Amino acid sequence: MRYESGIKEACGVFGFYGPADAQAALPIYYGLSSLQHRGQESCGIAVTNTHGPRENLLVRKKLGLVDEVFKESSLSALQGNMGLGHVRYSTTGAPTVENAQPLVLKYLKGTLALAHNGNLVNASALRRSLEEEGALFHTTTDSEVIAHLIARERVRVSCVEEAIQKTSQRLAGAYALVIMSPRKLIGVRDPYGLKPLCLGQKDGAYIFSSESCALNAIGARFLRDLKPGEILTISQDGSLTSRFQTHTYPPAHCIFEYIYFARLDSQMDGINIYDARRKAGAALCQSAPTKADLITGVPESGLAAAMGFSQASGIPFALAFYKNGYVGRTFIKPTQKERSMSVQLKLGVLKPVVQGKRIVLVDDSIVRGTTIANLITMLRKAGALEIHVRISSPPFLHPCYFGTDVPSNKELIAHAHAPEEICSLIGADSLSYLRLEDLSSIVEGLPICKACFDGKYPMDIPT
Amino acid sequence: MRYESGIKEACGVFGFYGPADAQAALPIYYGLSSLQHRGQESCGIAVTNTHGPRENLLVRKKLGLVDEVFKESSLSALQGNMGLGHVRYSTTGAPTVENAQPLVLKYLKGTLALAHNGNLVNASALRRSLEEEGALFHTTTDSEVIAHLIARERVRVSCVEEAIQKTSQRLAGAYALVIMSPRKLIGVRDPYGLKPLCLGQKDGAYIFSSESCALNAIGARFLRDLKPGEILTISQDGSLTSRFQTHTYPPAHCIFEYIYFARLDSQMDGINIYDARRKAGAALCQSAPTKADLITGVPESGLAAAMGFSQASGIPFALAFYKNGYVGRTFIKPTQKERSMSVQLKLGVLKPVVQGKRIVLVDDSIVRGTTIANLITMLRKAGALEIHVRISSPPFLHPCYFGTDVPSNKELIAHAHAPEEICSLIGADSLSYLRLEDLSSIVEGLPICKACFDGKYPMDIPT
Amino acid sequence: MRYESGIKEACGVFGFYGPADAQAALPIYYGLSSLQHRGQESCGIAVTNTHGPRENLLVRKKLGLVDEVFKESSLSALQGNMGLGHVRYSTTGAPTVENAQPLVLKYLKGTLALAHNGNLVNASALRRSLEEEGALFHTTTDSEVIAHLIARERVRVSCVEEAIQKTSQRLAGAYALVIMSPRKLIGVRDPYGLKPLCLGQKDGAYIFSSESCALNAIGARFLRDLKPGEILTISQDGSLTSRFQTHTYPPAHCIFEYIYFARLDSQMDGINIYDARRKAGAALCQSAPTKADLITGVPESGLAAAMGFSQASGIPFALAFYKNGYVGRTFIKPTQKERSMSVQLKLGVLKPVVQGKRIVLVDDSIVRGTTIANLITMLRKAGALEIHVRISSPPFLHPCYFGTDVPSNKELIAHAHAPEEICSLIGADSLSYLRLEDLSSIVEGLPICKACFDGKYPMDIPT
Amino acid sequence: MRYESGIKEACGVFGFYGPADAQAALPIYYGLSSLQHRGQESCGIAVTNTHGPRENLLVRKKLGLVDEVFKESSLSALQGNMGLGHVRYSTTGAPTVENAQPLVLKYLKGTLALAHNGNLVNASALRRSLEEEGALFHTTTDSEVIAHLIARERVRVSCVEEAIQKTSQRLAGAYALVIMSPRKLIGVRDPYGLKPLCLGQKDGAYIFSSESCALNAIGARFLRDLKPGEILTISQDGSLTSRFQTHTYPPAHCIFEYIYFARLDSQMDGINIYDARRKAGAALCQSAPTKADLITGVPESGLAAAMGFSQASGIPFALAFYKNGYVGRTFIKPTQKERSMSVQLKLGVLKPVVQGKRIVLVDDSIVRGTTIANLITMLRKAGALEIHVRISSPPFLHPCYFGTDVPSNKELIAHAHAPEEICSLIGADSLSYLRLEDLSSIVEGLPICKACFDGKYPMDIPT
Repeated sequence: MRYESGIKEACGVFGFYGPADAQAALPIYYGLSSLQHRGQESCGIAVTNTHGPRENLLVRKKLGLVDEVFKESSLSALQGNMGLGHVRYSTTGAPTVENAQPLVLKYLKGTLALAHNGNLVNASALRRSLEEEGALFHTTTDSEVIAHLIARERVRVSCVEEAIQKTSQRLAGAYALVIMSPRKLIGVRDPYGLKPLCLGQKDGAYIFSSESCALNAIGARFLRDLKPGEILTISQDGSLTSRFQTHTYPPAHCIFEYIYFARLDSQMDGINIYDARRKAGAALCQSAPTKADLITGVPESGLAAAMGFSQASGIPFALAFYKNGYVGRTFIKPTQKERSMSVQLKLGVLKPVVQGKRIVLVDDSIVRGTTIANLITMLRKAGALEIHVRISSPPFLHPCYFGTDVPSNKELIAHAHAPEEICSLIGADSLSYLRLEDLSSIVEGLPICKACFDGKYPMDIPT
Repeated sequence: MRYESGIKEACGVFGFYGPADAQAALPIYYGLSSLQHRGQESCGIAVTNTHGPRENLLVRKKLGLVDEVFKESSLSALQGNMGLGHVRYSTTGAPTVENAQPLVLKYLKGTLALAHNGNLVNASALRRSLEEEGALFHTTTDSEVIAHLIARERVRVSCVEEAIQKTSQRLAGAYALVIMSPRKLIGVRDPYGLKPLCLGQKDGAYIFSSESCALNAIGARFLRDLKPGEILTISQDGSLTSRFQTHTYPPAHCIFEYIYFARLDSQMDGINIYDARRKAGAALCQSAPTKADLITGVPESGLAAAMGFSQASGIPFALAFYKNGYVGRTFIKPTQKERSMSVQLKLGVLKPVVQGKRIVLVDDSIVRGTTIANLITMLRKAGALEIHVRISSPPFLHPCYFGTDVPSNKELIAHAHAPEEICSLIGADSLSYLRLEDLSSIVEGLPICKACFDGKYPMDIPT
Repeated sequence: MRYESGIKEACGVFGFYGPADAQAALPIYYGLSSLQHRGQESCGIAVTNTHGPRENLLVRKKLGLVDEVFKESSLSALQGNMGLGHVRYSTTGAPTVENAQPLVLKYLKGTLALAHNGNLVNASALRRSLEEEGALFHTTTDSEVIAHLIARERVRVSCVEEAIQKTSQRLAGAYALVIMSPRKLIGVRDPYGLKPLCLGQKDGAYIFSSESCALNAIGARFLRDLKPGEILTISQDGSLTSRFQTHTYPPAHCIFEYIYFARLDSQMDGINIYDARRKAGAALCQSAPTKADLITGVPESGLAAAMGFSQASGIPFALAFYKNGYVGRTFIKPTQKERSMSVQLKLGVLKPVVQGKRIVLVDDSIVRGTTIANLITMLRKAGALEIHVRISSPPFLHPCYFGTDVPSNKELIAHAHAPEEICSLIGADSLSYLRLEDLSSIVEGLPICKACFDGKYPMDIPT
Repeated sequence: MRYESGIKEACGVFGFYGPADAQAALPIYYGLSSLQHRGQESCGIAVTNTHGPRENLLVRKKLGLVDEVFKESSLSALQGNMGLGHVRYSTTGAPTVENAQPLVLKYLKGTLALAHNGNLVNASALRRSLEEEGALFHTTTDSEVIAHLIARERVRVSCVEEAIQKTSQRLAGAYALVIMSPRKLIGVRDPYGLKPLCLGQKDGAYIFSSESCALNAIGARFLRDLKPGEILTISQDGSLTSRFQTHTYPPAHCIFEYIYFARLDSQMDGINIYDARRKAGAALCQSAPTKADLITGVPESGLAAAMGFSQASGIPFALAFYKNGYVGRTFIKPTQKERSMSVQLKLGVLKPVVQGKRIVLVDDSIVRGTTIANLITMLRKAGALEIHVRISSPPFLHPCYFGTDVPSNKELIAHAHAPEEICSLIGADSLSYLRLEDLSSIVEGLPICKACFDGKYPMDIPT
């Protein structure tokens, strides 16, 4: 029930560089469609023909979902063998079409396109210093700051990768970038590896994607994740070249990808997402066991952890809800008076499953608490005897500066209330969260950034 | 994976009659949205104010999904305390906006609106005889034939219900109707009870709905199913009056609602849909047991039967696929060359679940066989050792004349091939269908029409 | 300045029947575009292939102007060698898309399409009697009443023309009809000849049109006007057959076509429109001469009469205004506070033309008086010394029941005020209207209906 | 018949700065609507509130006409007391929405908006030098080059006007600019005065406009034309301040504004447009007199000169054509086969005016010759005896580098053919152009650029 929760990923990026006769737009469309869960506000695709003039780049970007923005006619107008795409939530910059990505810019060496997932923490200072040199901006995004820096470095150095390398020394924060120069497609990952980016291959084409699920979707083979700080170039001759940012830092992969953002069928930096969530459910079973007749999860967000809880406990798993797949982005919300209807319009209880049962209900987070409270009411109305809520992440207590958009503190139920109060507010019989100390084990010891839970940021945050 | 299968329900209907200060349009919108699985081609809502002039009826109908056709502005323009709505597939009449319902017609007594789920088998003969009396038609639907007959009877009798009663004597086929006269809302069910229609209540309003799930969605209370042949009137004073069609026939409820069409969280004529499908899965386990490590279902269509199979066999149930909810109606299909991508764009395999496992894969039907074949390929690629397909309905062998739209025989894989051939064509290790003799038990002996499986129709079909 | 005036023509009709390989939609589009001044609310085109199945008729109709409703793709979808079109204002029936024409109806003999210009005076009584026989209506137009009568007659007689002939005996009022049956295109004119309809020819096709200007526009040859009461059939073999309505009445052609509605480059029932208006100007010069330096007209409505006045008086004609052609139907009107800006946004004064001059300003009518008052203010501001207003029609004093839509009496300045008061209200130095007795001479004695000026209607009007 | 001709003005600009409680968007809308003849490809409006934050600027720009792009809702969303607008043809940069104006850019001092009419001749060199300093461009317009230069100068100087003044020293070419900084509205005219810009006043607001007609349209008072090289600032306190570009050049006002572009009811640099065209007609009468029965003009482009010819010759003026005002931008063109219909769909001959007459037909230019040839055919078909064509400008022989878009040489009939040949090609009885030596007298000796006729450019043109 992600649309309820209010925690939003920044963005997803996707790039494709095929042989001269390939068409990049369709695989990018499918790739973005498979990354749609990472951003549903706007999307865009830019393509070029690497054997045509250096200025010839075609772009389409708009507010809306991938299948609203692109139709057969608009896709087939995007002719070119190399391209990149973006799906977006706004973390900096308003949700306007001007701020939609990919950014497309003309500079000395032709046309540059850029797609960015993440958030800089020093964007304001960088922007101010550029403005003091007379720079003009068209958007309010930190992505345009990156583009300006690259263009300025590019004048002084011999290739665009070198300009990117020099630029990256000035950037602080989280970024996974796909950058398209007239002849090259370049993937960049910040030195902490905060944001994911991986490389795939299909029929002579190389592909960048925020998540591996988009590679599977188009039938491409997963090659590897980009390394933290890596700048990986796909060239016109089909060769791959890596260089690295000059400074190195201890890796700190965003834990939220594993417990929340990424698609269940992706893997990231060696960890399978389904496995991570299943393990979170198993850990919950260890730390907060309960007697129950069945384990269920909130669709889709709690199902994998519920499976893990079931396997660890031996209590059978069951589906307790039907989800109406037609309740989408443009659905008219119930009025304030009928707000409680909001959940039951999307989910219907399967009464024969829950009637007379003691139930463990698993979800991945509680934001405002209204959704889970409504589900509990629905389950009780259908005859459930007990409802024990288990949340497969710790309470979210600290702001994220790296591109995750969370509601302000006063909207977060965990900010004002202790777990036992929340349990009572939502009407559950018991409530437990995943313990902070269990986080590391669910990603098998991978170095992670879990600042949103413990307040320990991997870098200094300017005030 | 319903959009793949090609078996289509005819329609869904919904009616709402509230007190003078109620607004019917919003609950109808939510009701239709909960019946959207019954028809995705066009939809419409008509409302009237039962204290205003008799001619004053507002209607909006268009090609598209409910949340595409209705926006806040268009909904709030539909002011009135009584109304009805319709979601549609075309079984007779082309999918044009002219044929969208509700039908709205002016006649002697004001304005009449009509929403119809089902199909008449004598529509052509009735239409011909009307034309020979000089009747004009605006649509090619059999629903307009019904409206003509009612209008003609209405001139001779004292109330609209009597006209409907006389009309129903001339109709042969399946129909669930909601009819709105200036002051009354009337639900009608054909004498065989082929098509479902139920009655609910909320805050002083009465509600008709094709399925009970739409009552739950708006927080209404389910009162009862209409009886076969019942003509149930909601009057301006809030009273309910029933009359019955003069001829009675042995009931014959459509089995397809239980195994295929209806929403998992509905109940119909006393049978819970989830239960029926779970029992189908259990029956499959009895008739076609197999050794396996896990039971899974094709989302969403096979999940309930898979649960039943798992419970009956003791083999654990697991989710094996992630479903991309953003792949919708307007998604651009892969080209012929890449057709096999079609399924993997919608579903991603959860590799850690299936790797090294012997799997029972349950679905509710096989139409062309391409979807299941692709899923089997995906599972094997992810490391599944064996795949045993179990189908929770018998092979579909005979045409339906009552409003179910199935592909022509040559497209139906079951028409040309025996099960063992199909098993080999789709690449499964074994394949079994639900047995014809098990159908009755899954609906607890409810009298059913299962002509699509055994060719025994409950009435004569004109050639 | 027609959009100001509020006097609206009912409709324009156009029909085309070409050889088997002809395409009717494009010439109809051009024809309707040339009749757009007759109706700007909705438009529609229906076509059929006279060698295809009898039911196969394609139609597109929508609210909007011809070039808004039809694009290349929608036009090229309308394949067929015979067709008809309509542009509409609503005189009966609301301006909804349901009421847009051509009406398309299925009846015993296939599909019937009908386009109607005019208004019946006995439509209510006819509709009531049809309803009492059980008839259903989809629209609130009197045109649908005509269709019902034809369909009912058609059952009893041997051809559609005979049904039309029998129907016309029951119709009272004004009508020019183009009717399309599966194989025939039929033009019908009411027995008074109130509404115009003419016949043309081009490249083996016959054409019906409300006005001859539409024939010229598509390069067709004008053959003749239909006679009052004529029913003219174009058959599949390219032959023309006439029959006549059984009752005959003294002709009474609508004078408003000549002085107001029809396009300046049309001719109707033997009278050239430009000539009629020029003569009206000349008559004004005779009955209300004045000393002046120049004669000008309000564009475009007063220019022809101004030319006539100039020629009769010997005072030179000049253009005094520039008209902004981009101020169209969807233009945002000034707020109440700035209402006086409304005219100057559309017309700019040519200061060097009017400065220091005594001016005769000619227009074809005064409705509310606000437009002419604003023009007089603008002329004075630009330095005009005297402004003498001459109106090329008598004051409009009586309602029209035959399809001309005029503002209600209280909005008509001539209803509440004598000419000398109006002169003072609009700020003119003198004001004269065309005299009632001069009307006949401007149409060279053609028998006319001038009931809107003298209250003498050519038939009884039911109360 | 401008849409035929293919000679296109670059753009129109409009600015409005009212008191704190004024709303700029509506007067700008009306102003742009009155300048629509200067550009019909895209349009835009940007507004700001001069008492709000410095970054707060709202903008809407799109492909389409003013009344297509702006609706009541979009206009009322543009809240602010200062603003500027633009209508555009593309002379540099493709007709894409990215290139639409006003340009809106963020720089050191807040947000800058810029609207530009004209064309730089050194734009490529300036852009190259900016790119070599690492500048990024979002559009392909020369207007963005100007914005970059201003932003870079602004860092070094104390106010935006000084930055504009320094920038203007580097610009070569034609430009009329309206520039909006957070608190100031600034009008700029190039030192030759090639492009027009004037100042008006209404109710405490100051207004910039390309033409005075737009001032009249909104009821504003014309104050004066900006002087060549003037930089005129409207400040927050309502004061006006002028400064001038440091270099001065002999003025060279574009002659095409007078004979072709500007609206008939405008005046520019002291010359009334109607007067200039009337004098051109009179000059034609002197240099190429002829015996005729009447003088007429092609609507609207030839009417003023025809009036001048008529007055000079004593031969009466008459309107010979009806113009269908509904044939607009989106009209579907006739197919190649019926191309000759194109003109008669827009213009209908008034047969009684021209029959049996010797006619002088005046227009302002001949581009391809097809329109005038069709008109001559139509006139002859309607019975005209002789047709003498008089063109109120000399033949167009040299390219314009300052923002006038003309067809390439091979499309210009005057390039390949001498007048006597053209006369024969178009089927006229005689043909004369305005003489080069008469150009000066029609603008009363105003210094003009007439390079398109004589090839003498007022500045060096880089190759």
